[in-house]
Amino acid sequence: MKDNLTQITEKNLNINREKIQEGLKKQIIIPEKNHYRFNKTWGGIQRGTTIFKDGSTIHGFPKIRRAMLLKPTIKKHFKDFQKITIEEKMNGYNVRAAITNNKIVGLTRSGLICPYTTAKLEEKIGYSFFKENPNLVLCGEMIGPDNPYVPKNIYNVESVDFVIFDIMEKQTADFLKLEQRQKLTDKYGLKNVPNFGQHHPEQAHKKAREIIKKLSKEKREGILIKHPEHKKPPIKYTTSQSNCSDLEFAYRYYNDYGSDFVHSRVVREGFQSYEWREQEQQLEERAKRLGKSILKSIKKTIKERNNNEKTTEEVSIKIKELRTAEKFKKHLEKQAVEFEVKDIEELNDGYRVHISKVMRPTNDKTKSLLNGDLW
Amino acid sequence: MKDNLTQITEKNLNINREKIQEGLKKQIIIPEKNHYRFNKTWGGIQRGTTIFKDGSTIHGFPKIRRAMLLKPTIKKHFKDFQKITIEEKMNGYNVRAAITNNKIVGLTRSGLICPYTTAKLEEKIGYSFFKENPNLVLCGEMIGPDNPYVPKNIYNVESVDFVIFDIMEKQTADFLKLEQRQKLTDKYGLKNVPNFGQHHPEQAHKKAREIIKKLSKEKREGILIKHPEHKKPPIKYTTSQSNCSDLEFAYRYYNDYGSDFVHSRVVREGFQSYEWREQEQQLEERAKRLGKSILKSIKKTIKERNNNEKTTEEVSIKIKELRTAEKFKKHLEKQAVEFEVKDIEELNDGYRVHISKVMRPTNDKTKSLLNGDLW
Repeated sequence: MKDNLTQITEKNLNINREKIQEGLKKQIIIPEKNHYRFNKTWGGIQRGTTIFKDGSTIHGFPKIRRAMLLKPTIKKHFKDFQKITIEEKMNGYNVRAAITNNKIVGLTRSGLICPYTTAKLEEKIGYSFFKENPNLVLCGEMIGPDNPYVPKNIYNVESVDFVIFDIMEKQTADFLKLEQRQKLTDKYGLKNVPNFGQHHPEQAHKKAREIIKKLSKEKREGILIKHPEHKKPPIKYTTSQSNCSDLEFAYRYYNDYGSDFVHSRVVREGFQSYEWREQEQQLEERAKRLGKSILKSIKKTIKERNNNEKTTEEVSIKIKELRTAEKFKKHLEKQAVEFEVKDIEELNDGYRVHISKVMRPTNDKTKSLLNGDLW
Repeated sequence: MKDNLTQITEKNLNINREKIQEGLKKQIIIPEKNHYRFNKTWGGIQRGTTIFKDGSTIHGFPKIRRAMLLKPTIKKHFKDFQKITIEEKMNGYNVRAAITNNKIVGLTRSGLICPYTTAKLEEKIGYSFFKENPNLVLCGEMIGPDNPYVPKNIYNVESVDFVIFDIMEKQTADFLKLEQRQKLTDKYGLKNVPNFGQHHPEQAHKKAREIIKKLSKEKREGILIKHPEHKKPPIKYTTSQSNCSDLEFAYRYYNDYGSDFVHSRVVREGFQSYEWREQEQQLEERAKRLGKSILKSIKKTIKERNNNEKTTEEVSIKIKELRTAEKFKKHLEKQAVEFEVKDIEELNDGYRVHISKVMRPTNDKTKSLLNGDLW
């Protein structure tokens, strides 16, 4: 079986057998039940790239680089072009949906098949698109509250929804032009992320700032600035509200989240405040927002722990069949996520399973400090 | 010569020759002109430990651990004792002063001989103490504005001063009892850090909080809580003002300072706000202070860079003889510090040399982002 996968990988990714053996040995290429996946970007192959036994290669979704300043960055990055498109960057988790061996799979960023995601895709997307386009991969964001990774209540989505931001070809990893993507999604009634129109790169920063300010008020994440025919990689830019909400999240679990996560978000706030020429009052508001996101979260965590409550992240999944929950639990276990199933709620059309993820490092550290241990 | 040092090290630190060879090979033990120094804590030997050709061993100054919460930590750490002393933790740089081969040396934390520090110690302390106590090491803080490492104008020190917080025995690394230290410093007219009296560990957190609040208003750094006979290692605790001032400093040079530096200070603010049961208004003030420290610094750096000014740290040293400046420049070069001498000011009693340290990573990154490069 694995030899078969090695052969397919050799052929599809055009790398030699020795290199594959090296990747397997270094645990960069991870053998799963029916596929190989690349655990990180290596030798020009994107993290999350997966090779299946039926011969499908689904490339990893490339990391999108960030603008710290809108004006100079948009101008420079797209200087050779007349038109760029601004789309919303939604806050959920990145999913690649495709079929392999005639079955839908929902792949996470690292190329794992998430059974919950797969079940949701079967419900939300179904097979009609894939039957006629078996060579295409729908790249989108899974958003909404019944979301085991990044639950957000900001999108007016009742449970969970899949919104598409790109369509990629298997094997070549080429992205369809925006127009083609629009045609296809229209044809199959699939949802796209909100589109904020086309703009000239010399002017786009003004529009981008306007959109960012509006999205920030609505607690939404940010934007992607793309060439409509993918002649340049897209770039991203996020709202202050999203930076602060990330900080709020990170400091709830201050000993679980890396300091790099925090540092980069704080620096973004400084660059935005600079570019928007904020004066004393606006700066103070931003400072307060930033500081409060951090301090309130830490205090909440300490207070809870002092009351002997555990610091947890509460998530839920909504499923039709309980066996999806069983598969999902195995999926979490495999990733060494510590969790407890708190409740299984019966609904008319299935079940909502409430899961509590335990953030052990933060729990342990906080308890120890409350007990008078040294930092 | 080095063989001689190896022999002395073997004898004084009671480690075998093979271990010393290993340390040298791993660049943990660094051979200097006339001494070996330990570049990091290794095999139970403190970072900064130095062995000189005359047979002196000057142990590294041990890292002092931090209380995140005053009350539980003081109680627990000192539970077996009746009395603890609170002293001020001043904000300058840690120096160990001693004689070797009949000459004063000023050692930095990592065991380097700083020529500027050495010259200042000769002026401020002189030889009388060491002639009668050649086996003792004065551990103190070099504070004040003419300070090439941590210049601060908060102490009403005109140029630079050396204040003692411990006296250590060569060879054994034992610290003198506070009372003995007081007697000795009185005898030789040496300065000690401010002392806030003795307290019972069950009650000391109240006093500590009072002191910290006062010190914070005066922009001072914090306190050390010690057993007067060093029967337990001391612990430290810092003011909010000092945390914020560190953040202000770190974000001026956001690409030179590690994110861990930032993260730990932010977490301290959360713990202090929790322990002091701050309500909405105080929390908002703290949030604003924290946020502004960060944002103002980043903005200042970007603004400067946009005006084509370099982001630098301006420091000065005050010396009697210009050759001290020459030696100090070599000392900085050795440590790969990038700097320019901006000005040599002639004074009645010597010279003030103005040095500009160039923070290259932050300079380069900011320039690149202003030019529209991606993060």
